[in-house]
Amino acid sequence: MSDSPLGSTTVMQVGIIVANIEEAARSWASLLGVAIPEIQVTDPLEKSDARYHGQPTPARAKLAFIPLGQVTLELIEPIGEPSTWRDQLTEHGSSLHHIAFEIKGMTERVAALAEHGLPLLQNGEYVGGRYAYLDGQKQYGAVVELLEND
Amino acid sequence: MSDSPLGSTTVMQVGIIVANIEEAARSWASLLGVAIPEIQVTDPLEKSDARYHGQPTPARAKLAFIPLGQVTLELIEPIGEPSTWRDQLTEHGSSLHHIAFEIKGMTERVAALAEHGLPLLQNGEYVGGRYAYLDGQKQYGAVVELLEND
Repeated sequence: MSDSPLGSTTVMQVGIIVANIEEAARSWASLLGVAIPEIQVTDPLEKSDARYHGQPTPARAKLAFIPLGQVTLELIEPIGEPSTWRDQLTEHGSSLHHIAFEIKGMTERVAALAEHGLPLLQNGEYVGGRYAYLDGQKQYGAVVELLEND
Repeated sequence: MSDSPLGSTTVMQVGIIVANIEEAARSWASLLGVAIPEIQVTDPLEKSDARYHGQPTPARAKLAFIPLGQVTLELIEPIGEPSTWRDQLTEHGSSLHHIAFEIKGMTERVAALAEHGLPLLQNGEYVGGRYAYLDGQKQYGAVVELLEND
């Protein structure tokens, strides 16, 4: 943690939107010489309380995590819509999506970062924590993800 | 180094294409609570021997590096054309561009990785080393950069 608007300087994850997660997971594992990661699916709305642009959304995603020391590669294939995952795949094809930092105090952090050109784009819960994607596309050139683990 | 087609599992850099590097550098520095990085300019063609799709190109870029421990954020504003930097800015706007790994044996590595769905996209020299961007957009969801420092 650091005393800055973001509260962290450690890149934890790089998120990649892909059209076919099984193919991408096999390709990355082969390239890196690591085990093929399991494919997971994000929780349904009742559990995830997923919101896109502030509205509840039934959109989900298939996920695969490839841990590479400090940084984990996160592969993401959208299921359903609307979501930032689906919009990026539709508009830009398979492509890098976000850089993630681990933070504490999600609610206060999200409110504070909106003043720094990072409005909330999408957020939700997962078992053991929560995430928020902040839309830094124009000013920062990237979606910035906040991860808070309990 | 690892005994895999890539030869590394350590993410060294995340590259971000931006429309205005001075603004992006100030924004990231403020967000992270670090010093505003200096803006550098890539070498001219005579020194860089830059090639895009195998052809010499006069395109250059403004660069700014924000070291965050293992991972350095690299901000890139294209100058001139043609380059992968310019094409991405034109087609997708400010956006994440590549993940970089440090390798040894550039020529052999580039040849071998073309067999793994990573054809050479752009390459060049810099003082003390060389880089190659491999086009993994479709199969991997990202440009993979190889960095070789002497």
